[in-house]
Amino acid sequence: MWADLRPIGRSPATGGYRRFAWTGADTDCRAWFRAQAESRGLTYELDRNGNQWAWLGDPTAGDAVVTGSHLDSVPDGGAFDGPLGVVSSFAALDELGARGARPAKPLAVVNFGDEEGARFGVACVGSRLAAGLLTPAQARELRDSDGLTLPQAMERAGYDPGAIGPDPERLARIGAFIELHIEQGRALALPSEGPVGGTGSPVGVASAIWPHGRWRFDFHGEANHAGTTRIEDRRDPMLTYADTVLAARTTARLAGALATFGKVSVEPGGVNAIASLVRGWLDSRAADEETLVAVVDGIQRAAVERGTLDGVEVSVTRESFTPVVEFAHGLRDTLASLLGRDGTPVPLLPTGAGHDAGILSASVPTAMLFVRNPTGVSHSPAETAAEDDCLAGVQALADVLEGLACH
Amino acid sequence: MWADLRPIGRSPATGGYRRFAWTGADTDCRAWFRAQAESRGLTYELDRNGNQWAWLGDPTAGDAVVTGSHLDSVPDGGAFDGPLGVVSSFAALDELGARGARPAKPLAVVNFGDEEGARFGVACVGSRLAAGLLTPAQARELRDSDGLTLPQAMERAGYDPGAIGPDPERLARIGAFIELHIEQGRALALPSEGPVGGTGSPVGVASAIWPHGRWRFDFHGEANHAGTTRIEDRRDPMLTYADTVLAARTTARLAGALATFGKVSVEPGGVNAIASLVRGWLDSRAADEETLVAVVDGIQRAAVERGTLDGVEVSVTRESFTPVVEFAHGLRDTLASLLGRDGTPVPLLPTGAGHDAGILSASVPTAMLFVRNPTGVSHSPAETAAEDDCLAGVQALADVLEGLACH
Repeated sequence: MWADLRPIGRSPATGGYRRFAWTGADTDCRAWFRAQAESRGLTYELDRNGNQWAWLGDPTAGDAVVTGSHLDSVPDGGAFDGPLGVVSSFAALDELGARGARPAKPLAVVNFGDEEGARFGVACVGSRLAAGLLTPAQARELRDSDGLTLPQAMERAGYDPGAIGPDPERLARIGAFIELHIEQGRALALPSEGPVGGTGSPVGVASAIWPHGRWRFDFHGEANHAGTTRIEDRRDPMLTYADTVLAARTTARLAGALATFGKVSVEPGGVNAIASLVRGWLDSRAADEETLVAVVDGIQRAAVERGTLDGVEVSVTRESFTPVVEFAHGLRDTLASLLGRDGTPVPLLPTGAGHDAGILSASVPTAMLFVRNPTGVSHSPAETAAEDDCLAGVQALADVLEGLACH
Repeated sequence: MWADLRPIGRSPATGGYRRFAWTGADTDCRAWFRAQAESRGLTYELDRNGNQWAWLGDPTAGDAVVTGSHLDSVPDGGAFDGPLGVVSSFAALDELGARGARPAKPLAVVNFGDEEGARFGVACVGSRLAAGLLTPAQARELRDSDGLTLPQAMERAGYDPGAIGPDPERLARIGAFIELHIEQGRALALPSEGPVGGTGSPVGVASAIWPHGRWRFDFHGEANHAGTTRIEDRRDPMLTYADTVLAARTTARLAGALATFGKVSVEPGGVNAIASLVRGWLDSRAADEETLVAVVDGIQRAAVERGTLDGVEVSVTRESFTPVVEFAHGLRDTLASLLGRDGTPVPLLPTGAGHDAGILSASVPTAMLFVRNPTGVSHSPAETAAEDDCLAGVQALADVLEGLACH
């Protein structure tokens, strides 16, 4: 399976993946998913929000056990974030077959569309639409950097955007959703440094997802000639931006939270022109919402304070916010007991990353499995997992599916 | 003349001009120049480097008095930077005609190509090629942001790039070159604050151009997930960049110099990804080369020092460097005496901006006139000049041309 999927959307220059929603690379990934489903005799479905499903058993019977993840990527992302969950889901179904397990409930593999939000700026579009957490009207307003709207992009890829929206009937068929994902930190890799004292196990179970959000900081100054404008006549927003980047790091560190500026745009953007507008996007996360709000407020205060010195106006727009997700405790405990049967307790860990599982957790009992990532590197071609650990992940997922669906 | 030129290449969104070399807007400006030349019965010439000339008298007679500037713009530039010099040149010829002046030497108006370097990153391409300060081989390597080379861009605009290169015969015909330009500071506007104590005169004469250059700072860190990577595991080049921006301001201020970061690019540039590479372009200028070198060295030291803390590698590439230009003292004194005949001495001022006049000054006696810019704003739609001051500029230029060419 990996061999077919690996070359799709890979940049020869960086070795990273560029599988953005509704692009050619995404279409190729989707064709791969459908071929995997059909080669196993699974029932293939495309839902109204562009999510793909592959069913073993009757899709309409209810109380289904569903597993899966996503196939799209961030810009120059790694090979595992998303695809490991989808590939492992098909492999776990194969493993159940090899074990001769007889499912008493329907099983399904799902590929959620546009999880990373790399193209339209909103993450988990497919699951958010299905769960009613993104309205069709909001989704229709989304534009990519070329000005193309989400419906236009879907249409160009050959999909019908007319029916996007909440899909409660489909979600009501699901009794449990399990997402397997590569770990995006080093809690499993380095027990001594992990936040919950991991045991060095190749597989862990998620406890919660930190609340997180994205804020756009606009710094408005005055364009001018870089070679002739005296320092005292300048209103240079690049200075305010720079100071805010440093303030974000300090504020987050003191609060035990995370704050990152990873995207910036400048107008007019000439080498010999003082900027008129610098736009920086802040990604921030913390263990609880109160801390998160305090961190972002602190960064904004620092930005405004520095802006006053620079003659620069600062405005801040919250572009997205996802509250804390506590995964269903019952399902989590079931997973822990299924995976801890040999006497070694499975590590339980929180994560700062958002996932479709987090979105669905409001509607459906949801859990996550993490597979060890020795470097902890994520959203980069350096992201990696050992083959043995991936196989352990497949075994763990098969154990969970068997325990939940076969008795 | 202004009415025909004003709408070309103007962005409806910003009100700024986008007249980049060899684009459609540039072609329209060039057609305007040719029409102005032909409507006056001047001899039109296009030279091998894409510079346009309009001759009154025999182009080959030698000892010509040439005036002019450029018609291209920075991104979202103002209406005056460049075009004021070209329009005033034609208007000054008209004024000489109205005065009944009889030139004893050939006169010409010139429009130098690609002065701003907005498209290919190197300023004054037309005059640099002619003066042999940019080799044809170097020029052929230049690429715009779409990857198009300079020769390809010239060809698409209908020009022959085959003959670009040094043009000593043409430059040898020129006895004096005078460039009129809007002032890019407030020395004329605010006598009390001007660097040489301007007299509030609408017109000034240039003394020198500060040495200046462009340096590219590459900050190499490690891409990672903004939501899951612990602060102590990060190698975030955005922090090093931010610290360097602030260090540049401080270093320049202490040295009485200028240092500006107005352009930055980030890879991968995702909101939820720690950057792997931040590239920032530094524009720096100072009154002398020793100070300039010391300022840039100081900024580089600060960048490397902070990079060590951040786990970020810093490399610096000098992309261009222009030594100090002292305009020909004899010609400058002649201008000062021609313009100070009513007893009010004309202000003499240095500038931090590069010009075609600075490039030509190595080959040809060269001088510049500045027209008052009340706000001092430049490279922005807010750049402005009062009509009376523009007319005073035309009179001054006509006085100079008459004094130099008619006796």
